[in-house]
Amino acid sequence: MGLIVQKFGGTSVANVEKIRNVAGKAIREKQAGHDLIVVLSAMAGETNRLIDLANSASANPDEREYDSLISTGEQVTISLLSIVLNDMGYRARSFLGFQVKILTDQSFQKARISTIDTQAIQKELNKGSIVVVAGFQGVDEENNITTLGRGGSDTSAVALAAAFKADRCDIYTDVDGVYTTDPGICAGARRLDKITYDEMLEMAMTGAKILQPRSVEMAKKYNVPVYVKSSFSDEGGTLVTKEDKEMEREVLSGITYDRDQAKITVVHIPDRPGVAANLFLPLSERNINVDMIIQNASSQGFTDLTFTVSKKDMKAAQKIVEETAKEIGAQNVEVDEDVAKVSIIGVGMVSHSGVAAKMFKTMANEGINIMMISTSEIKISCVIQRKYTELAVTVLHDAFHLEKKK
Amino acid sequence: MGLIVQKFGGTSVANVEKIRNVAGKAIREKQAGHDLIVVLSAMAGETNRLIDLANSASANPDEREYDSLISTGEQVTISLLSIVLNDMGYRARSFLGFQVKILTDQSFQKARISTIDTQAIQKELNKGSIVVVAGFQGVDEENNITTLGRGGSDTSAVALAAAFKADRCDIYTDVDGVYTTDPGICAGARRLDKITYDEMLEMAMTGAKILQPRSVEMAKKYNVPVYVKSSFSDEGGTLVTKEDKEMEREVLSGITYDRDQAKITVVHIPDRPGVAANLFLPLSERNINVDMIIQNASSQGFTDLTFTVSKKDMKAAQKIVEETAKEIGAQNVEVDEDVAKVSIIGVGMVSHSGVAAKMFKTMANEGINIMMISTSEIKISCVIQRKYTELAVTVLHDAFHLEKKK
Repeated sequence: MGLIVQKFGGTSVANVEKIRNVAGKAIREKQAGHDLIVVLSAMAGETNRLIDLANSASANPDEREYDSLISTGEQVTISLLSIVLNDMGYRARSFLGFQVKILTDQSFQKARISTIDTQAIQKELNKGSIVVVAGFQGVDEENNITTLGRGGSDTSAVALAAAFKADRCDIYTDVDGVYTTDPGICAGARRLDKITYDEMLEMAMTGAKILQPRSVEMAKKYNVPVYVKSSFSDEGGTLVTKEDKEMEREVLSGITYDRDQAKITVVHIPDRPGVAANLFLPLSERNINVDMIIQNASSQGFTDLTFTVSKKDMKAAQKIVEETAKEIGAQNVEVDEDVAKVSIIGVGMVSHSGVAAKMFKTMANEGINIMMISTSEIKISCVIQRKYTELAVTVLHDAFHLEKKK
Repeated sequence: MGLIVQKFGGTSVANVEKIRNVAGKAIREKQAGHDLIVVLSAMAGETNRLIDLANSASANPDEREYDSLISTGEQVTISLLSIVLNDMGYRARSFLGFQVKILTDQSFQKARISTIDTQAIQKELNKGSIVVVAGFQGVDEENNITTLGRGGSDTSAVALAAAFKADRCDIYTDVDGVYTTDPGICAGARRLDKITYDEMLEMAMTGAKILQPRSVEMAKKYNVPVYVKSSFSDEGGTLVTKEDKEMEREVLSGITYDRDQAKITVVHIPDRPGVAANLFLPLSERNINVDMIIQNASSQGFTDLTFTVSKKDMKAAQKIVEETAKEIGAQNVEVDEDVAKVSIIGVGMVSHSGVAAKMFKTMANEGINIMMISTSEIKISCVIQRKYTELAVTVLHDAFHLEKKK
């Protein structure tokens, strides 16, 4: 007996038939005696359809109106699930952001949840209702609708689990858990039973698309146990949780890759204080996120600076950087779209030496050139030529023996 | 300089291109110096799509959830129009029912507006914003989303016009005004420059689909001048207003028809007090609206009772009535789906005698049999065989000289 939050993504609610399947999973927990809050995404493809509508209405849609538009998809799915549940004899009630109320800041498109009022939902739970909440959305203090960014429904679910001190937050998706790497490109990929918040966060940040990074941060902060499960099978599942002794023994948990990368190098920059700020300030003002940054050691008063951006931002970034390069007297700007980032992640790295060396050696053996390297305590990322992505992932998976349970 | 409410129906906002056309009409009034509130319906077809979804989820969808579902279409169009207006350099802000707030009772699917809070909208009008409001929706006191019934956006617009004491409420639709009858079946149909609230109400109640009857009642109650105009042309338009001397001189304003009729006769009922109640109570409990009711004079302790219902309710009504007929000892129940109702409407009827006789005579000359008759001060309705609908409308239009301006 406890309180469980379930979250279902777009492919799990893609049509009424699939919504019936979701209802079945909700009812099973309800029948086991749990209080239940179900968080839904929009039907697969619907949010993209709405985004296309916004973009056909304006090249630069008003941010407030954009959020009001793209938040309608979740309103459809939560109403439909509630209709199905009521039809099956279970009292169910849908809640939109304003009805909960899920208060956020006013950063449209990437709002952050500040508080969740538990009163209205608690009242329904006390009546025995299954509560169905719209993911992805909240309201600011002026009752404007805000959205939480791509994958924001994960964050909605974890935030509700934290607010209600839920026993579990079950994230149902189209895969049956978190894998050591993408089974689509590496046959040896193995499903993990457990992974730490920190590792999951690094995996989410470096290319794994299972959970929104912010939801993992929040789960860690409030110590919410998160289960990643399949909507379409009862097998498997991965628990995302805090570190424990058993987990510490493994060197690596996973290998991720990200092909959505472009590399920009500013060549032969006069090495004066402030040049990096000059380069990156105009990019941040245009909301272009810079991922990795490498500055080569200065030689004879000149330096090279290389950084990566998302592919979609490449053209805009290049234009801005070329202007700045001229102003600061750099020689030229080189761009490379044919790159990818491969990362290895594991809390075990901290206590195992030679992990980085082994990674570099493994790739060198295959003739894969490493263009950029960046590290954190539990992660090493390398930028390589795009065409070697699959090869790098496969040989690293082998080299670190991820295919077998250690 | 004043305040104008504009309302655009589903065909006027069917896609982004048409929404741009709506923006043009809004901007024209704004440039003329008026404050502006624009009320929108959902894109043509969208509400039906949502209703189909609800019906595929349950044969008897939960009412609260149904309203939450079908109210999403307006959220899409108001956001899109606001995006377009902002893009064109005009500050615009969309408002949902809860953001206004438009408070209604809790009768889901046919909620009635109780109050409109003018504060939030007024604040935006004071900033020079074009305010864009979702038609068809409100919230009850518990913040549940409610909808106002088919054509409810008309009522939203008129209610807002009343609350803000607007100078005009312009209802833009796909025809360029109110006609003496349907131009689709009567070539002589003529657009009216003016019509009284009472006549418009009778026309709306007897088959004209231009305005929701409730919106006309509200316009009459608060004396809101309503213009029915075309979204696609600047020509024409009809003013719906209170009665004035000039208008009184015309005998008829219009002729309507309604083919969505089915006739049920309960034959040979023992004539005791309470039999009518026994028959109609079970129908109202099942939300079946009965339109015309005729009871024949009782002969020798027995009576026949005939009434009409909407075609979609026919099967359900027949089943209920057959049960009741057995209980009260009636002989049998006869149904006829091949009927239609033709009505003539005009405030001039009050002061002109012989209007009814002329109507009956005109139809008799064509061999059209009248099955039922019902009258009000300004309306006479006849139920006839369905196949004579077009003929009846055309000959009545001729007989009362509606084709020419009197």
